[in-house]
Amino acid sequence: MKLREIGEFGFIDRIKGGCFIREKNVIKAIGDDCCVFRTTSDLVTILTTDMLVEDVHFLRGAIAPLKLGRKSLAVNISDIAAMGGIPREAVISIAIPPDLDVEYLDALYDGMKEIAGEFEVNLLGGDTTSAPKHLVINVALVGEGKEEELLYRSGARAGDIIFLTGYVGSSAAGLDILLKKREVDCWTELLEAHFNPVPHVRAGRIISSSGMANSMIDVSDGVASDLGHICIESGVGAVLEESKIPVTKTFEKYVARFGLDFEYLSLHVGEDYVLLGTARESAADTLGRALAKEGCHFFVIGRIVEGQGIKLVGRDGKARAMDTRGFDHFRKERDGEG
Amino acid sequence: MKLREIGEFGFIDRIKGGCFIREKNVIKAIGDDCCVFRTTSDLVTILTTDMLVEDVHFLRGAIAPLKLGRKSLAVNISDIAAMGGIPREAVISIAIPPDLDVEYLDALYDGMKEIAGEFEVNLLGGDTTSAPKHLVINVALVGEGKEEELLYRSGARAGDIIFLTGYVGSSAAGLDILLKKREVDCWTELLEAHFNPVPHVRAGRIISSSGMANSMIDVSDGVASDLGHICIESGVGAVLEESKIPVTKTFEKYVARFGLDFEYLSLHVGEDYVLLGTARESAADTLGRALAKEGCHFFVIGRIVEGQGIKLVGRDGKARAMDTRGFDHFRKERDGEG
Repeated sequence: MKLREIGEFGFIDRIKGGCFIREKNVIKAIGDDCCVFRTTSDLVTILTTDMLVEDVHFLRGAIAPLKLGRKSLAVNISDIAAMGGIPREAVISIAIPPDLDVEYLDALYDGMKEIAGEFEVNLLGGDTTSAPKHLVINVALVGEGKEEELLYRSGARAGDIIFLTGYVGSSAAGLDILLKKREVDCWTELLEAHFNPVPHVRAGRIISSSGMANSMIDVSDGVASDLGHICIESGVGAVLEESKIPVTKTFEKYVARFGLDFEYLSLHVGEDYVLLGTARESAADTLGRALAKEGCHFFVIGRIVEGQGIKLVGRDGKARAMDTRGFDHFRKERDGEG
Repeated sequence: MKLREIGEFGFIDRIKGGCFIREKNVIKAIGDDCCVFRTTSDLVTILTTDMLVEDVHFLRGAIAPLKLGRKSLAVNISDIAAMGGIPREAVISIAIPPDLDVEYLDALYDGMKEIAGEFEVNLLGGDTTSAPKHLVINVALVGEGKEEELLYRSGARAGDIIFLTGYVGSSAAGLDILLKKREVDCWTELLEAHFNPVPHVRAGRIISSSGMANSMIDVSDGVASDLGHICIESGVGAVLEESKIPVTKTFEKYVARFGLDFEYLSLHVGEDYVLLGTARESAADTLGRALAKEGCHFFVIGRIVEGQGIKLVGRDGKARAMDTRGFDHFRKERDGEG
């Protein structure tokens, strides 16, 4: 079905159902100039926004609309998770090219509602408009947290351990499979990591409420670049151990099968949406146990040091300087999240 | 200067200055995963978002980047004004095509900062990305207000007067000048209304805090369509008087000069960003005086009635039914705000 058959308001009516997860705090949603909601008075408000542009962040033919819908919201939820906050209310803007069917949009919104349900996020409204050619999705997400618990990029201190809350590199390998047009059947785990990242909200909450961590970020640009942000904002350096970088068996198999660069795929591509942070050394065991109890991972991969720059200690024991420049949207072109 | 010369982070550094108007409530802004801020605990939070797409909402060659920056934020501020709220914190997403110069972007952000300063809005962060072809700007704006004061589309009652807080049609006339490629020199007032709408936040606050109004919306799609939203959401009808529709002398001159349709331009095009609302009849004088004292207009243009649909009483005293369908982004194409 073509969008011109149902029109803008027909489309809004169609996507309206299933948008509110927590109705109690919603005063006004979809169908007015703004949405209005109550926040908890002793918490601070967190706001994030991310735009996904066709042919820049995704290829319409490569990702199923349901997965694209999930991912659009997931990358925003992950930003809230990276501060240790709780995601709450979202508004979606979408610019729709003329050739897009209503069924595609239904699936896209089904994906958003699916992940919104999983993370108790209300979809409260947004803006629907036409686009000349490329599909554009923008999500703005409001979250909340206790001011004294939230973690930023700027809090790392020399002596901190560096941790990850999940495996890295799988999304990069998934992207590699797509770009190299390899057989997809054997590598569904890697493709799923690329198309369907799961934000680590629970891990973020445990870490932030423990009071033991000093800084946190989510891995969107790659560990090298994102740890680079922490180091620059905190005025410190870091040493990573290559042997401790957590990757899945399938990732290892994929890298070996095609003779690929382990460091590049695991540390320099990103879109893993696991959390990367630093905590005081004495907290490692306690944090690890607290996360394990909730079914979350906690991998210690290195240490914050005085000075600047990031060194990677290879499996041969030799340290080498790591390039921390991540993807720059304006300096070069790449298919993937910036 | 080309964006590739300074890169994504160079660009962010460049636009960073002058973004915070009220630093006191800002905990974390630009340069982290999210922004974090305090809201006033006894108020409810208002959230709105609007996306402006090149060749759908604006033609890059027709509007100066400073004005485009102002308008991107203005349309969002106007949505908050339409509820009687106070605009507070904004995040900006921008997808930038490769041919856009840094100087263009500087002017665009100067425009946003200019109007942000005028309305005490903090620009707290956002997302910068590349675009294949068309410039896309998305603003998400958080505001606040007292729950018991906010005005919605759904509160109009039979017997209410219908009011406008400013002149309508000038923006439509400005767009007409552009589309018909007329000489612009004589009609700068109309072009300015189109390119540089000023949101009516102060009028909205006076009206909402008076407790005398029952519904409100901002005129983005045109009085006919926007009053249509109020009527549908409130389950009422309306009668407008053509002779009371407030237009400027220049608008009258323009319509007469080119023999144009007064009703179409003043009521069916929109982008005026004045407030349209309803209030109990006894409040008209009090509200009018309160607004006049603050230099704001208050024009009574008709009355809410039982039933449905909107009638327009012409200068000949004859009533005719009005088409309340506004612009639909998917049913037809037009250059202008949806």
